[in-house]
Amino acid sequence: MKLNIALLAGDGIGPEVIDQAVKVSNAVAQKFNHEIVWTSALTGTAAIDAVGEPYPDATHDICMAADAVLFGAIGHPRYDNDPKATVRPEQGLLKMRKKLGLFANVRPTFTFPSLIDNSPLKRERIEGTDLIILRELTGGIYFGERGRKDDGNTAFDTCTYTRVEVQRLAKLGFEMAMARGKRLCCVDKANVLETSRLWRETVQDMEKDFPEVTVSYEFVDAVAMRLVQWPNSYDVLITENLFGDILTDEASVISGSMGLMPSASIGVHTSLFEPIHGSYPQAAGKDIANPLATVLSAAMMFEDAFGLKEEAELIRSVVNKSLAEGIVTEDLSGKNKAYKTSEVGDWLAKNI
Amino acid sequence: MKLNIALLAGDGIGPEVIDQAVKVSNAVAQKFNHEIVWTSALTGTAAIDAVGEPYPDATHDICMAADAVLFGAIGHPRYDNDPKATVRPEQGLLKMRKKLGLFANVRPTFTFPSLIDNSPLKRERIEGTDLIILRELTGGIYFGERGRKDDGNTAFDTCTYTRVEVQRLAKLGFEMAMARGKRLCCVDKANVLETSRLWRETVQDMEKDFPEVTVSYEFVDAVAMRLVQWPNSYDVLITENLFGDILTDEASVISGSMGLMPSASIGVHTSLFEPIHGSYPQAAGKDIANPLATVLSAAMMFEDAFGLKEEAELIRSVVNKSLAEGIVTEDLSGKNKAYKTSEVGDWLAKNI
Ligand SMILES: CC(C)[C@H](C(=O)O)[C@@H](O)C(=O)O
Ligand SMILES: CC(C)[C@H](C(=O)O)[C@@H](O)C(=O)O
Repeated sequence: MKLNIALLAGDGIGPEVIDQAVKVSNAVAQKFNHEIVWTSALTGTAAIDAVGEPYPDATHDICMAADAVLFGAIGHPRYDNDPKATVRPEQGLLKMRKKLGLFANVRPTFTFPSLIDNSPLKRERIEGTDLIILRELTGGIYFGERGRKDDGNTAFDTCTYTRVEVQRLAKLGFEMAMARGKRLCCVDKANVLETSRLWRETVQDMEKDFPEVTVSYEFVDAVAMRLVQWPNSYDVLITENLFGDILTDEASVISGSMGLMPSASIGVHTSLFEPIHGSYPQAAGKDIANPLATVLSAAMMFEDAFGLKEEAELIRSVVNKSLAEGIVTEDLSGKNKAYKTSEVGDWLAKNI
Repeated sequence: MKLNIALLAGDGIGPEVIDQAVKVSNAVAQKFNHEIVWTSALTGTAAIDAVGEPYPDATHDICMAADAVLFGAIGHPRYDNDPKATVRPEQGLLKMRKKLGLFANVRPTFTFPSLIDNSPLKRERIEGTDLIILRELTGGIYFGERGRKDDGNTAFDTCTYTRVEVQRLAKLGFEMAMARGKRLCCVDKANVLETSRLWRETVQDMEKDFPEVTVSYEFVDAVAMRLVQWPNSYDVLITENLFGDILTDEASVISGSMGLMPSASIGVHTSLFEPIHGSYPQAAGKDIANPLATVLSAAMMFEDAFGLKEEAELIRSVVNKSLAEGIVTEDLSGKNKAYKTSEVGDWLAKNI
């Protein structure tokens, strides 16, 4: 099979972790007789520095022409404390999501038995956790009208959702629930927000089409609690963009394996796969960042974008082997030897 | 001293826990020679049932005439899954906050040494946690314009903030930080939202007036993670209404003492004190709910609304004594005897 993949390494540790995913993917392709055509393109700070734009048109064209996008991370501290900056790397991310129609961010949270004690939660709270948060990614307050009034002394942001947007996301949620534990939780703030009431009523209307799925409705503040208390009580959660931003990050730390969590963003035009960790600028260029989340994102890509399940499973099993044998970067090595980012990648590729 | 206190018991377990706070407050008043005049008023579902309105004018007049308000909880499951209900108990809460000008919700999260093992977090993660989240309570998306368009198929909510609103809340945050650990964290989403950029730039402008306070700026998603990872790394956090709703609830469960956490809402016209737990309808009328959060809210009232620090400390020490001696409700009793709500209240009053 010929796989056309756009490669967006991005900022910070992005390029280093992407390199390892490429090594592993190439090893898989060789073994299964696929041909991967990688096309690299600029995004984030790297793109701003090169062409003044965090998501240049040239990059967009490459993504549109590809069957899937493998993405590193973007973000740079020089923009963080400057509320007045007019060009920001994050704008590139938002523009990319919107232009590629990446409407659903799929964020699994699961545990690795060997890493469970890294969790800030007690073992009995976290054991058995295997949930997916499905975050709407191209609507809501991220993309509504915003601005200033009264000489800059009043600011506003608008959150908007249409029924069709909710249906599209919720349908995916119902389908995922059907393929898993058949439980769906709709997360909203329907006791306050009109957009949340639209979410809730739309999902309620869809229940009849998925009679086997047990649906619950919970307020976002309650979910923020329960994710810490009993994360293992959830199966699939669906929610709007901003709530999803907060809850997916909260969920990511409870597993104790933040550095290992992959994600997919499912789109109208293509799909994108990326580690959930950020650009981690402090570690950039040091060859110490954990590449496993990116490697596991490549596994998701093989399975979800190309239907190559066996290839995906092979990557996952080699990752598990590296964990079992302690071929890991310093964030996971404890008192044992810490391997370099590139060494972990080489080891994985060799073991494919 | 004469203390005029409006008493809003509300729904669910509200009346039961409020009763115990009244007993304890009366015992304190007797001991210190204060006269408390309690004036009860209806709110929430109880008010809807009686007069068709969750925050009736008569209740508002009583609150305005009082020096402080002691509040139980509101909310009823019969409204939760009905997105089309036109009168909701929560509207009463929001109207009350707005009309009383309760602009700052003060939510401490601290630990009780004897309860620390109730936390879902490991001991080393939670030990030493003593933080305050200051949540803006009368602005933002809770109070902006909202509605439907396109035959109900599009919904919108608007988040608005003015510089003056941010300054008012932030000033309190700086002052609290000065009286504590001198560290302030401004929580926002300035990489996306214009209102957040107004927050960040306003707080940055105020830094020079509080040179001793170390200020940090963190994105709400990052804070949602760090609250689970290292809650004991925070001192005072300030944030807007919706972020505060989510983060205060998340923070409340990490201590393992959710049933004990008090809160204050500081207002233009008066201040209101309430337990952070909800109306817990499943337990209503069973005399099993934990009254300690409400009793500790009364302690906050003595101190913050009336400047009666000694009285507040006495309440706190009696609460600690009840914990040490196991005079607690079933949520805390473990394998030991569970006391009734009213028995705990009686014991506390007697020991004042
Ligand atoms: C960088 C930022 C705009 C982005 C978001 O909020 O969506 C990030 O936090 C994420 O979750 O991918
Ligand atoms: C009941 C609801 C409207 C309320 C809020 O969101 O403010 C509650 O969650 C709270 O935090 O007091």
